[in-house]
Amino acid sequence: MLHAIVMAGGSGTRFWPASRAALPKQLLPLAGDRTLLEDTVARLEGLVPPDRTLVVTSARLLDAARRQLPGIPSACLVGEPCKRDTAPCIGLAALLVSRADPDATMAVMPSDHVIRPAETFRDAIRQAARLVEQHPGRLVTFGIRPTYPAESFGYIQQGTPLSGGPDEAPAHVVAAFREKPPASVAAEYVAAGTYLWNAGIFVWKAATILEALAERQPECLTRLEAIAAAWDGPDRDRVFAEEFAAIKGISIDYAVLEHARDVAVIEAPFGWDDLGGWSAVARQRGTDQSGNTVVGRHLGIDSSGTIVHAADGHLVVTMGLVDMLVVHTPDATLVASRDREEAVRKVVTELESRGWVEFL
Amino acid sequence: MLHAIVMAGGSGTRFWPASRAALPKQLLPLAGDRTLLEDTVARLEGLVPPDRTLVVTSARLLDAARRQLPGIPSACLVGEPCKRDTAPCIGLAALLVSRADPDATMAVMPSDHVIRPAETFRDAIRQAARLVEQHPGRLVTFGIRPTYPAESFGYIQQGTPLSGGPDEAPAHVVAAFREKPPASVAAEYVAAGTYLWNAGIFVWKAATILEALAERQPECLTRLEAIAAAWDGPDRDRVFAEEFAAIKGISIDYAVLEHARDVAVIEAPFGWDDLGGWSAVARQRGTDQSGNTVVGRHLGIDSSGTIVHAADGHLVVTMGLVDMLVVHTPDATLVASRDREEAVRKVVTELESRGWVEFL
Repeated sequence: MLHAIVMAGGSGTRFWPASRAALPKQLLPLAGDRTLLEDTVARLEGLVPPDRTLVVTSARLLDAARRQLPGIPSACLVGEPCKRDTAPCIGLAALLVSRADPDATMAVMPSDHVIRPAETFRDAIRQAARLVEQHPGRLVTFGIRPTYPAESFGYIQQGTPLSGGPDEAPAHVVAAFREKPPASVAAEYVAAGTYLWNAGIFVWKAATILEALAERQPECLTRLEAIAAAWDGPDRDRVFAEEFAAIKGISIDYAVLEHARDVAVIEAPFGWDDLGGWSAVARQRGTDQSGNTVVGRHLGIDSSGTIVHAADGHLVVTMGLVDMLVVHTPDATLVASRDREEAVRKVVTELESRGWVEFL
Repeated sequence: MLHAIVMAGGSGTRFWPASRAALPKQLLPLAGDRTLLEDTVARLEGLVPPDRTLVVTSARLLDAARRQLPGIPSACLVGEPCKRDTAPCIGLAALLVSRADPDATMAVMPSDHVIRPAETFRDAIRQAARLVEQHPGRLVTFGIRPTYPAESFGYIQQGTPLSGGPDEAPAHVVAAFREKPPASVAAEYVAAGTYLWNAGIFVWKAATILEALAERQPECLTRLEAIAAAWDGPDRDRVFAEEFAAIKGISIDYAVLEHARDVAVIEAPFGWDDLGGWSAVARQRGTDQSGNTVVGRHLGIDSSGTIVHAADGHLVVTMGLVDMLVVHTPDATLVASRDREEAVRKVVTELESRGWVEFL
């Protein structure tokens, strides 16, 4: 059966002060009325039932995630005691879903991307599941056709085409995974037309990924197995905390995908945006007549190209602003030139270095 | 004896959202740690005792004024039931101080200007009081040497010099009062060197101003006398409300000064700023190494020439800002280009027209 694994442990700093350590990007309604996590789970409706949807987040975000996902059974929400990147997260999820369903197929996905329309996404996951059924040992990834030579994504090189149905998205054998490239290399990739951004969405058998981990990350798997063995007993929290902390953090790409023999990539037929910053938010939300993107209560006088994001009820008045960013929260406000959007994360670094931890 | 009359009923809109209908400029600590009203009263120390300091504000600001001025006897705080400009305010004050001191001399002053140093101010008031003692029917005003051709002030033309002591400020007979002039006329005034800004600070006998009101504004004075007659009885509030509301609002300049025969002007020897907007605040407070003026908690990254004013505890981060204004309050935030400072009052007009009265 198909299971969904929603990875919701991210802690981005690009949306400070809207995003915080205790309220990261995926828990915010950045692209619409629902949070990105809510959207991610809603997108699965009709594809996998809630009791086959495993949401893995960090322990300190567990309550918030639970509040946002009242339809997901409590047992399907997992809070990691510490951050260890994607391989341990996915390995543990594989063990957990395998217990009741040894032949489980997993669709693994981040929770902080905008993906539309949902039906196209579900069709693409179904296509991936078929590719796995054809070759049970296969790992299927999704690639995004690049729109610019991004340095912030890994790339997947398309190899031999795989035959597919008339309504199916293009699928290929993966020729190679490429780490985040410098701009010049990224430009070559884009020009070549055969490189896709790695979207971090995967479909495979739980058994397949566990075999790969056994081969490539045996210590990691041993510790994950100890956690899974204690899962339904009184020592779960202690074992989870101890064993998970002892695992070396590593991404599933480095740990498994780059070494795997049978990997396919589907060129995503759906719209995708990883919401890398406020301009991406504006792209998703659109602009008003003045070219401003507004969430909250705003009075703009001679203001254009400006993004305003304000907490409930607070009034933001802008006057004579062009291409600015104003993010208001109850305890902190950021005002920045939009051309400095990439530097928002520096604010978090600076706050850390000053010890102003109450704002992190 | 000398009495101080502090006029604290103003309701400026240039400092929105820091200033509000319920918290106007004079009640804010704009120029330093103390509010302008607190500074104004503190400036009188050694000149007039608290029980000869009458603070006239509007009724709805009375509690706030009382909290800021714990040293002033409650009986010396007057809350006008409605706004009627300076002539009724000063006329009522003259009646009230005359009751126990028929020969009272009044030093009348606004509460929302920055005046430094205090000792020079006190010396100047003493000089004015001497000019009044020499000619008991004389009205003494203070003029500020103009630093630019302001259109927002009235001007006082200096006439014949009055002889004075070696340490005294220049004093002249007033040749004429001039209403707020257009820029070209203001420029002529400045070039002439014999015109001063009208600072709205006056010294005179209570009896003199009451005689002038009897001649020029007899109905106003009759109503003020009715209020004063009821002042110590059970009907004070009702009579104050009814009679004061029935008075036509008019400034003391139009009502009396422009028609008076014996008016002198002292060129103010003290530093003076009417704090017409945020740039004046920056001028008074000075700037940090980046050229920013900050009240509150601020982290500036590549920001200069920017004024930040934030409510207690709130953090304002600015990044890539040049010559901007960021004013944060618990329920509203203004972000504006500093070259739009003069338009801040338009914000208030716009809020009124939208019916967003909770932010006024």
